[in-house]
Amino acid sequence: MENNYERIQNTALRDRVVSAETAASWIGNGMTLGLSGFTRAGDVKAVPFALVNRAESEDFKVNVYTGASLGSDIDKLFAEAGILGKRLPFQADATMRRKLNEGAFHFVDQHLSHTSELIRSNVLDQIDFAILEAVSITEDGFIIPTTSIGNSLVFAQHAKEIIIEINVAQPESLEGIHDLFEPGEQGKRDPIPLTKPEDRIGAKGIQVDLNKVKGIVFTNQMDSPSTIVAPDEETVMIADHLIDFLKQEIEDGRLTKSLAPLQSGIGSVANAVFHGLLNSDFTDLKVYSEVLQDAVFDLIDAGKVQFASCCSITLSEGKMDEVFSNFENYRDKLVLRPQEISNHPEIIRRLGLISINTALEADIYGNINSTHVQGSKMMNGIGGSGDFARNARLGIFVTKSIAKGGKISSIVPYVSHVDHTEHDVDVIVTEQGYADLRGLAPRERVELVIERCAHPMYREQLWDYYNEALTRGGHTPHVLEKALSWHINYAKEGTMLESEKKVGMKV
Amino acid sequence: MENNYERIQNTALRDRVVSAETAASWIGNGMTLGLSGFTRAGDVKAVPFALVNRAESEDFKVNVYTGASLGSDIDKLFAEAGILGKRLPFQADATMRRKLNEGAFHFVDQHLSHTSELIRSNVLDQIDFAILEAVSITEDGFIIPTTSIGNSLVFAQHAKEIIIEINVAQPESLEGIHDLFEPGEQGKRDPIPLTKPEDRIGAKGIQVDLNKVKGIVFTNQMDSPSTIVAPDEETVMIADHLIDFLKQEIEDGRLTKSLAPLQSGIGSVANAVFHGLLNSDFTDLKVYSEVLQDAVFDLIDAGKVQFASCCSITLSEGKMDEVFSNFENYRDKLVLRPQEISNHPEIIRRLGLISINTALEADIYGNINSTHVQGSKMMNGIGGSGDFARNARLGIFVTKSIAKGGKISSIVPYVSHVDHTEHDVDVIVTEQGYADLRGLAPRERVELVIERCAHPMYREQLWDYYNEALTRGGHTPHVLEKALSWHINYAKEGTMLESEKKVGMKV
Repeated sequence: MENNYERIQNTALRDRVVSAETAASWIGNGMTLGLSGFTRAGDVKAVPFALVNRAESEDFKVNVYTGASLGSDIDKLFAEAGILGKRLPFQADATMRRKLNEGAFHFVDQHLSHTSELIRSNVLDQIDFAILEAVSITEDGFIIPTTSIGNSLVFAQHAKEIIIEINVAQPESLEGIHDLFEPGEQGKRDPIPLTKPEDRIGAKGIQVDLNKVKGIVFTNQMDSPSTIVAPDEETVMIADHLIDFLKQEIEDGRLTKSLAPLQSGIGSVANAVFHGLLNSDFTDLKVYSEVLQDAVFDLIDAGKVQFASCCSITLSEGKMDEVFSNFENYRDKLVLRPQEISNHPEIIRRLGLISINTALEADIYGNINSTHVQGSKMMNGIGGSGDFARNARLGIFVTKSIAKGGKISSIVPYVSHVDHTEHDVDVIVTEQGYADLRGLAPRERVELVIERCAHPMYREQLWDYYNEALTRGGHTPHVLEKALSWHINYAKEGTMLESEKKVGMKV
Repeated sequence: MENNYERIQNTALRDRVVSAETAASWIGNGMTLGLSGFTRAGDVKAVPFALVNRAESEDFKVNVYTGASLGSDIDKLFAEAGILGKRLPFQADATMRRKLNEGAFHFVDQHLSHTSELIRSNVLDQIDFAILEAVSITEDGFIIPTTSIGNSLVFAQHAKEIIIEINVAQPESLEGIHDLFEPGEQGKRDPIPLTKPEDRIGAKGIQVDLNKVKGIVFTNQMDSPSTIVAPDEETVMIADHLIDFLKQEIEDGRLTKSLAPLQSGIGSVANAVFHGLLNSDFTDLKVYSEVLQDAVFDLIDAGKVQFASCCSITLSEGKMDEVFSNFENYRDKLVLRPQEISNHPEIIRRLGLISINTALEADIYGNINSTHVQGSKMMNGIGGSGDFARNARLGIFVTKSIAKGGKISSIVPYVSHVDHTEHDVDVIVTEQGYADLRGLAPRERVELVIERCAHPMYREQLWDYYNEALTRGGHTPHVLEKALSWHINYAKEGTMLESEKKVGMKV
């Protein structure tokens, strides 16, 4: 590893440079770590590996708090090494997912804006080491984050000690795009003085007592590229329907061509939706989101997006090269914030965001399951979807209407797990169309959800359920004995489709 | 009806006085009405009755928006008269409940902070008539509300026309306790400049174009008294456990003796909890809530509560006399705000409220059903519980552990309807004890919920479910075929208790 002491501009800190192994050796059994990193961006890339290596010859457990999911297979390695006590607030790794669903460690799935409050108010275990990736440490002592901020500020402030990984592969040009704002203690804080996505309200980097910096490690490794897949036929249709809805809002006088600040969850569907905006008539758009994916940079290039606020930049390999080698084009159009600010209810409601997030399944009344496959198995986590959907001007959920070649309907009578209640779900979009549920009672929502969102192969079966439920009555009619039958059938017969199931039984 | 023109200090408006019948005659079929009133306080008491009378000889429907539930049996009469198209955002009347569960009209159950945004952004049908109770109209043209504000400000601003009921039974001393703040359009608004419960940030009354005032009706009738029942053995135990929890928070250094601003939902359990504070060591308390019930005034009298902010004052008959005949004692300790300010996520999070709301049922993982009996039948509505629990420092839910003499367990394997997900539920309290769920993974929560909250008669049955669920695995283990069996058994056999059910089957 080539060290680059010039990145430690505060020269008093230069004698704290150590190897990753040395830094990892400070971590004791039962400790709690606060790691930088949000959706594969800006995570630390050396100390976690050194820690995992220690597990080959040592038994220990650590609690790992992060911004969101980590890249570089760190979550996979943590899970495989069996060194996790508690992990929060989000993950997206296949191995970690399997292990947490086995109960191998405790995963705490949190609204991404909530973690900081729980740390600040000493509800969660105190952090022993904050381990943070940085571009540099400035002469005046600011730790400059890299491609994400996540929870790094609150981790640094509340940790007993800090280890910094200066990643020389992260371009120094990143300095200046961060805006570190700390709201202060609940009950003693002022309003957050942000009224536009482009407002700068904080500091250029993380400022803490530098005596807490116990060690500095050099790394030289880019972030893991994002794994999003290109838009497919269905995601393009979802984008088209969503754009139709937004056009209708303009026609109805509720939005203008510049819409309202946009938020979109991580993933291929969300990226496809943003891609769809490229060919729309919308102009002068702004983004106020968690993660910026490739499509936002395409929209900036196309002159569609004027400004984008986020807490993380997660790009594909090609896009990463392109963006960072032309970073001066983007510098004045971007700001990175702590995730509690990107996801803060106060700001989301004030700005009146248009919020677009992905659902696993929706029920006929508009309740959404974002996290639990078959009601039990965690996929990734609720992430910021609750922060946004509850407080946004428009809480929009997108999903393909079927999965597994039609064996699963994403529109069901009764979701097997609820992350977002009907009160927070304004619009559901599938490749079939969109259902605008605002201001509607549960019974009014059913027809829209079935006829506009469900796949035609499941519509009759949904109507059969609803018609039977109507005979039972109630504000939200259900047949409790059959409410979960679709999921039970899938578990037993491999399909939710009644007709296939019957065929299967005859054989 | 004795008119009192002195209450119309703006003399230009005096010629608009009409009878309730005349005012009601202006209301046409299909119109949308915005009525003052929040939990039986400050509702209009003449025009709705005149409108109901018209229904005897006329067929028509109206949509009725309010702050929350109405008193004076208005909701009952509306429901019986069959004149409702849509009703939102909350109700609490037995007849209305029965009718809406039959599907006789569309009830839209909303977060109480959300309705104003939907009106402001023209998502809901425009209001034809705002019909608002007032103490008076000042010389400078302010409409002074009475014992609640609810949604009256946004109704007045966005209605085509306004009808005012000046209720001479409401004491003029109420003038000066209101604080009318309008946040403005999303995307164009500033931070809400409120940092303490006692801050005054708005106007003394509702200010609108007085040309919109089409008629003024005089009334002379007090609010319907609240129907809360006195604390019983279980609610006292709930209060005691909750106080134990708060004491522990002080011991752990997370709270001081003045706690944090308190919010409590409407109802007997919440009132009992507040009553429990009378004999506690807590001092210099503040309240930032929706509704003030009797107990808050007892706490003010006892010197425990320094200040209380609300959007409605709902008292029992005796307390009403006592408070209003000694109102000067309370005037500088009270403020009434619009419900979007009392319930605003921005404020709730900033102040770090301690939020106490009632659950119908909770599951072993901490998900809460606040609204739907047996998953289908609406009780009252979600009210402000979602506004508060999601954003508070402490989201606390209280319930008795059993209902119907033990036939129903309030702690179940799987709630039949979800209003609050495990992410928003910090503490559950029953007469059995409290479960502090903060920072815990689902599997960690189970033991606390079963052992500390469930009734002993149901604990083994809950463990049986959970142990079987564990064999299926998952982040939140469930046995889908049995998840709703408790509710199904109750519907079929009249009990959730397995042992009773078997006995029943043998007979």
